[in-house]
Parts: sequence; C-alpha cells; structure tokens
Amino acid sequence: MGIGIDLGGTAIKGGIVNHQGVIAKERRVKTQKGYECVVRDLAALINELVQLSPEETTVGIGIPGILSGDGATVVSCPNLNWKNKPLKQDLEAVLALKVLLVNDATAACIAEATFGSTRGRSSSVLLTLGTGVGGGVIVNDRIISGAHGVASEIGHMIMEENFYDCNCGKNGCLETFASATALIRYCQKQIDDGVESELKKDDTYDAKQIFDAAKAGDALALAAVNRLANYLGWAIANVNDLLDPGIFVIGGGLSGAGDFLLERIQTETKSRLTYPQYASPEIVLATFGNEAGMIGAANLQSFI
Amino acid sequence: MGIGIDLGGTAIKGGIVNHQGVIAKERRVKTQKGYECVVRDLAALINELVQLSPEETTVGIGIPGILSGDGATVVSCPNLNWKNKPLKQDLEAVLALKVLLVNDATAACIAEATFGSTRGRSSSVLLTLGTGVGGGVIVNDRIISGAHGVASEIGHMIMEENFYDCNCGKNGCLETFASATALIRYCQKQIDDGVESELKKDDTYDAKQIFDAAKAGDALALAAVNRLANYLGWAIANVNDLLDPGIFVIGGGLSGAGDFLLERIQTETKSRLTYPQYASPEIVLATFGNEAGMIGAANLQSFI
Repeated sequence: MGIGIDLGGTAIKGGIVNHQGVIAKERRVKTQKGYECVVRDLAALINELVQLSPEETTVGIGIPGILSGDGATVVSCPNLNWKNKPLKQDLEAVLALKVLLVNDATAACIAEATFGSTRGRSSSVLLTLGTGVGGGVIVNDRIISGAHGVASEIGHMIMEENFYDCNCGKNGCLETFASATALIRYCQKQIDDGVESELKKDDTYDAKQIFDAAKAGDALALAAVNRLANYLGWAIANVNDLLDPGIFVIGGGLSGAGDFLLERIQTETKSRLTYPQYASPEIVLATFGNEAGMIGAANLQSFI
Repeated sequence: MGIGIDLGGTAIKGGIVNHQGVIAKERRVKTQKGYECVVRDLAALINELVQLSPEETTVGIGIPGILSGDGATVVSCPNLNWKNKPLKQDLEAVLALKVLLVNDATAACIAEATFGSTRGRSSSVLLTLGTGVGGGVIVNDRIISGAHGVASEIGHMIMEENFYDCNCGKNGCLETFASATALIRYCQKQIDDGVESELKKDDTYDAKQIFDAAKAGDALALAAVNRLANYLGWAIANVNDLLDPGIFVIGGGLSGAGDFLLERIQTETKSRLTYPQYASPEIVLATFGNEAGMIGAANLQSFI
C-alpha cells in the first residue's frame, strides 16, 4: 500500500502499511528539537523504510498542525514550534520519493475510510477527542483541506461563551467544551467552586479517571461527561446540516470510553437534527487508535 | 448552455441560458395547486423551451425544498405541500430530455460559480437571506448534496436559544436570527416590549423598511441589523473552520441592502476567524438575484 509517517511532538513513527491496513514494518525515533534535526531524522527513517520496501514511490506524512493550501508547507505546528516550514520541498531535495503532507486528524479520517469504521463510505467526518479536538472531512472520496489548508478545524467552531479561552485565542471553541482538557478544567472549576466529588481525593486526575468516576456514579464526573456529549451532539448536528456526510466517527483518546460516551453523543445529536425522520447520520467509534496517522498517511494519495 | 427551471411557490420560470450566463429566452406560468398539475405545466413549459433550442438534451430544475440523496425525488417541499414526489421519473416519462433536480440555493451557488461573484473559484459557500436562510456549497467544483440530500442547510445550524422556534421545529436555528422573518420578528418583539422606533408608525413593515430605518439612524432598526450581522459572521466563521472555501457569497432579498450589510458581516466574521493572519475568506455580494435559480439549474450538469 504505502509508507506512512506520523510526526508527533514526542516521536516520529513510520510504517509500511499493507493492503489489509496492517503496519507490516514499523520504525520510530524520538522527535528532536529544531527543524533541521527533524528533517534529517525524517529522511533517515523514510530511507530505512524504503530499503525494506523499495517499490514505494510516495510517502505520506501526518502533521499535528496547519498546512498551506497546496499541502507543501507546514504553516503552523505548535507542538514542534514550527512556522512556515517548506517541509515537502526540503524532504524531496534529499529523498527519491514524492512527499505528501496531511493534517494528522485528516490522516486518521483516511485510515477509517480505507480500512476502518467508514470503509466503503464516500463521505465521512471524524472528530478526534484528545488534548484538543481535531477533525477530518472526506466528501466524495476526497479530503477537504480548504483554500488555505485550514478546513476541518471542527474543534474551533464557536459554540457559546466558556469560562476559559481556547489556545487559539478565541472563546467558546468546541475544543474548550469537548476535549480531555475541557473535561479536566470543568471538573477543577466545579471542585474549586465547592462541588463535592470523588475526584477530590487526587491532586490531579486525567480524563480517564473522570470517565471512570462517571461510570461509578460520581455526580460531578457524570455532569462533566454529559456536558461534553451535549456540545459534541450540538456540533455534529450543525456539521450534519452543512455536509450530511452520512457517518461521523469519534476517535482520539477519549473514544476509549466506548459506548458510555458514544450513546450520549448519539442521543444529543439526535435531539438537534433538522430532518431526523429521513436524514440521521450514523455515529460510530474509530477502529484505529495511535496507529491511525501512519495508516492514513500511507494511503493519502488515493484521497487527494 | 442549457435549460434551467426555477420552480417556485407562485411561479414556474424557465429559461434558455447562453454561454455568457444570459437568459436568452424565458417563459413562465403561475404555479398551480396539486402535484399532477405542476408536472403537466412543467413538462409543457420545458417542451416550449426545447422547441426554441432543440439541441438541448438536459434540463435542470431548482426546487425550494429537500431532495433525496440520488437527486430523483422531492422529499419535502413545504411551499408546494409536496412529500416524496418522484419528480425526475415523472418528468422523464413524458419528456425526451434528461431531468436533473437541485435545491434552489444550490442552483444559485452554481450560477455565481459559473458566471457571477465566485467565477473561477473551485470552492464557495452561498447564503441566501430571504424569508429563511438557504445555503449552497461547492467544493472542488462539485455541489455538496449529502448522503441524504440535506447538505448545505446552513440556515438550520443551531446558534443559541432564541425567543421563537424555527419552522423546522428546532430552537436557535441561524434562520431565526438572520432572515427577513428574523429581522421583522425581532423588531416587533422589541416594540412590544416598549422600545421606541420609527418603525412603530406603520402597522406592518418589511425587511427593506428595517434596513432603510437603520440607514437613517433608527436605533432599534440598527440594533436589529447588527444582530443579524453578528449571527451571520458567527455562522460564516464556523463554516470556514469546517470547509475553508476561500469565498462566501451573500445572496437573497436581504443582500439588496448592499455594503451596509456586507461590511457588518465581514467585520463580525473577521472577529471570529481561527487563523485571521493567513486564512481569511472573502465575503462578497451575489451577482444574480431572482434569475440565479434558472441560470444555475441550467448549468447543474457541470457540478455533479
């Protein structure tokens, strides 16, 4: 199938993905500081994979940031502290392969559409719920990257006023209501305001502990999860009004909460659909976890 | 170019559209009650146009309602009181042409992309501001109609709670904040609540009178227009996060307010963009008015 790279803030992971969507060979290195170092390590890792699979002519790279409209430049990548880096050109100068770049959530959307939960669907929308909220959009078997490369930023759709600002500088972004960060900050604020909760027994807690507490019946944790599902249902219904993709996928770390989260999102979405009688989208959990970026990037060429 | 039909609640208008986007010949009849009557009148009008332009093999029809995902059935058309009418099949049974159906706002979006304000752009989003708020979405030179045919329903994206419910049954839809109806109802409510306004001197007033009063400095009318622009800017910024189309078009009757409205929408959008430094969409007024449906429907085949 192809070579896919997942460029993350802590590791660069690369894999040879076969036609069943399985990562047949995988290599990884720690992400160094500095653009030149990362380019050098990326090239070395890609060359290593090419030696294992010499017939490959293309490599796809999933990036946790914003690409230019032509997909050649990393316009912004906060995790790596990059601005306007001509990554495609710099890699193609030292590699004998064609280099394609893609946003990492879009890569995950491609992985699902090729081998996972949305296989066989020509359109789909993925939401990755992690530290932030990422998005991937496929319409008519093509990724939507946008005129300036910033499409599918579902996490920054403004819902309503929130008690803290988003990292992007705006207030009210979906990701301040529907990410792991949002869950934790909401619980912290409620506890600071005097609400009782099992969560108080730990100085710090993560999103998984909040879900576990919610499942065990802790009222605050349950309110936090219901609040998150409420905003996700609202956002999904709004995206459905615009794109009617037929299917939405919930991925990212929070999707590990499984049906406990999924059923709440489904219910909240349903209550806001414009045409529930004849146009209800399916909402499903992602098939792939951490490997989605690599698998999707390896198949990027089929979706552009 | 082609034959385009605009099927409205009061009139059926048909035109032969030339390669410059000009309606070279036009015919119209009053819209009768009853599906069979409308099908008969549509067929007669189309045949009349075919006699004037015998080389045409396709007719496009803009419909003020919801089509099925395959574009063959009018699932819902409130203006004509239609539900699940197999219009494509019924017309093709009596015509020697291929019949294509399209939502009327999407037809207007095609007209702009072919001959108007978004000519040469591969992606664009149109908002028609009239009695309601309609939408048309083109991405990569194709209309987005959705898995169930209900994409581009921008008017039903939920913004926040409003003081009256939408015709669709939901509360908070964009069209309850940003249509002619929304403007009028907001002014009526404020006047009922005791707010002073020049508008009080008339028992009834329409959106144009509200815009005229706003331009003349009436505080209530100006607040109503600013409120409308506020919600449109919010919705456009959210759609931009999802699709980054590069350009938005404001059409429909309210767009007659011109730069007075447009500049307010531009300002409200700009304040909510996620990446204003490198991904600001253009927002422009539509080129076409009432003729947009016919012109776009005539060129539908190029966008599916």
